[in-house]
Amino acid sequence: MPLTYTPLTYTIDAELGVARRGRIDLPHASGEAAVQTPVFMPVGTVGSVKAVPQEIVETLGARVILGNTYHLYLRPGHELVRRMGGLHKFISWPRAMLTDSGGFQVFSLNELRKVTDDGVHFRSHLDGSSHLFTPERSIEIQIALGADILMVFDECTEYPADYARTRKSLDITLAWAERSKAYFEAHKHEVPWAADFAGRTQSLFGIVQGGMYPDLRRESAERLVAMDFPGYAIGGLSVSEPRHLTREVIEATLPHLPKDKPRYVMGVGYPEEIVEYAMMGVDMMDCVLPTRAARHGLLFTSEGRLNIKNRRFAEDQGPADPECTCMVCRRYTRAYLRHLAASQEPLSMVLNTIHNLAYYLDLMQSVRQAIAIGTLPSLLARVRAVARASAGPIATHS
Amino acid sequence: MPLTYTPLTYTIDAELGVARRGRIDLPHASGEAAVQTPVFMPVGTVGSVKAVPQEIVETLGARVILGNTYHLYLRPGHELVRRMGGLHKFISWPRAMLTDSGGFQVFSLNELRKVTDDGVHFRSHLDGSSHLFTPERSIEIQIALGADILMVFDECTEYPADYARTRKSLDITLAWAERSKAYFEAHKHEVPWAADFAGRTQSLFGIVQGGMYPDLRRESAERLVAMDFPGYAIGGLSVSEPRHLTREVIEATLPHLPKDKPRYVMGVGYPEEIVEYAMMGVDMMDCVLPTRAARHGLLFTSEGRLNIKNRRFAEDQGPADPECTCMVCRRYTRAYLRHLAASQEPLSMVLNTIHNLAYYLDLMQSVRQAIAIGTLPSLLARVRAVARASAGPIATHS
Repeated sequence: MPLTYTPLTYTIDAELGVARRGRIDLPHASGEAAVQTPVFMPVGTVGSVKAVPQEIVETLGARVILGNTYHLYLRPGHELVRRMGGLHKFISWPRAMLTDSGGFQVFSLNELRKVTDDGVHFRSHLDGSSHLFTPERSIEIQIALGADILMVFDECTEYPADYARTRKSLDITLAWAERSKAYFEAHKHEVPWAADFAGRTQSLFGIVQGGMYPDLRRESAERLVAMDFPGYAIGGLSVSEPRHLTREVIEATLPHLPKDKPRYVMGVGYPEEIVEYAMMGVDMMDCVLPTRAARHGLLFTSEGRLNIKNRRFAEDQGPADPECTCMVCRRYTRAYLRHLAASQEPLSMVLNTIHNLAYYLDLMQSVRQAIAIGTLPSLLARVRAVARASAGPIATHS
Repeated sequence: MPLTYTPLTYTIDAELGVARRGRIDLPHASGEAAVQTPVFMPVGTVGSVKAVPQEIVETLGARVILGNTYHLYLRPGHELVRRMGGLHKFISWPRAMLTDSGGFQVFSLNELRKVTDDGVHFRSHLDGSSHLFTPERSIEIQIALGADILMVFDECTEYPADYARTRKSLDITLAWAERSKAYFEAHKHEVPWAADFAGRTQSLFGIVQGGMYPDLRRESAERLVAMDFPGYAIGGLSVSEPRHLTREVIEATLPHLPKDKPRYVMGVGYPEEIVEYAMMGVDMMDCVLPTRAARHGLLFTSEGRLNIKNRRFAEDQGPADPECTCMVCRRYTRAYLRHLAASQEPLSMVLNTIHNLAYYLDLMQSVRQAIAIGTLPSLLARVRAVARASAGPIATHS
């Protein structure tokens, strides 16, 4: 019997209004180890969740992390990763992974990019060399990397963009989604680990675009759903639009996505945002915020955000977060974390990142529990209350 | 009965020629957890073994690490560390520590220092502020930091230095050793953890100076021994003298140090050097080499030194060191370590440092075993043979 190469399965096991708790079963996260949703996915741009050994990312409970197609294509190169057996083996991460399509980085890291119907010409931010990403090329690269979930190649519309520009960009993106899917269907048996999971392969997600225009978002969602993907992302957010717009676009889009498929909002967000989006029915999120903020000394805690470099922590013998049980909070004081940050010791980013990831991953654990027992609104209220005590924006994309 | 405030105890349990295997029993490393010698002590200059969480330094088997009086005095300040309960509590390191006196850093990091009979006037390398270290001040700071072993304040003679200059420097250093000891004896009950180890306190080591002149080294050793310290260091080495001179000075000095006290050579060395010095009868060594080299992509292995950034490792699926069982060698490939280094990912220095420390600590474990079973000469021959395949100097001081 020929192999059918099936994608993920998604199961809902609890609901609270439109919020849902569920499980995504993937080749590298299956059965008891399936990805529990709503999930926050730590970002490992260049094949590493910055500064944290994989052993510790595992201990924190992460079951799926991101890799970045644009960065990994440039360095070390997807063909090398393929020869090493795929990204899981190359970086020694046995659990699930997701790669974005590279569309966002081509958009955000390249001032000189040129978009045609065929694809995007861009220059490497590393050495200025010229490259072309087409939908086919992006999927070819993502198959070589071999993440459990890969994303269609899209154009991420800048903000602000007028209606005509957004309309045109959306048409390109939808055509690219078709081409991404066609290429994937023809090549999905080529993933480096095909032999290890007979009959299971990667899952290709569609990406809803349409800028800040609800009608375009709706059209984008409907036309993608007609193409039938195993999961759908909402892209084109966190592009410096005001936060209320982010929420409005998510709210306007979600009703047009099928209930029985995972819904992924890309590039978000602050703790109070990810809890809110989960309550709105979002299943997957990713963001560089906890890891990037950590490297700048910003800690997320149950008492709000702390700038650990602040002198007021110089003799604070308490843990970063008194409610946290991560390895950092169990062992080290704010005074020590403050000293490491003030002295620019490399251990500072290691420990800060571990704590921030623990905070985000524990928060999602609380979200999942709160969906099951019906307390999500009060959890959101609590997270919002501590957020109000804190302030200041941080860039949220890699 | 009044407390006597006893220093360390040192016990020899095996000998091979002049080499010896033993145990140093310290307040934070006693009984079964005593420091086993010959020992290599990882350097934690500013209160952190750079880039590695204390949990992992423990797992690697380190029982004693260094702190740096000069650096910690400037930041976060010894009074703060004292208020936090001492360095062990401040950095959350429950095992033994040793602080140097600050003499070496005043010498190496300050071009404008001014030495008088009283002490050294210097400017902070951080902000240019003026400071004075005297023997009394150095010991006061080191008591506040509260390491298990502290060092007399000394002048580290530069290389090259003529006989008259070295003679004069030695006289100052010996006078400072007396003053260091007098201050320590009068204040040794003030260590922050005095109450936790009733009757036990810090141990003050003397430091032999005398430049590259065997007769001055001998005189220095004899006059220090007359002062009766619980351990003796050989300082003033690794100051850019040729390596054969380092060995000659150690060789000329050791016979003048008591056999029943630990002997510590400061700031050494390469793997083949630390094995050789252990064979010559040295018990303790420290060096920034394994940690600093790691941050530059240089790995020490049973096959010699590797520059992991080298393109030849780009697709090498083997571990950094096939004979090593550290967490890095068990999990990650040379190809991945090469990618991390080439991409300047922060995880690169974390993993490289862990491996290099594992290599050094495992090597000392082999040295101790080889002393007991009589195979130290063949171990040295093996380590030298792989070293010959490698080359290139690395700065060895923090």
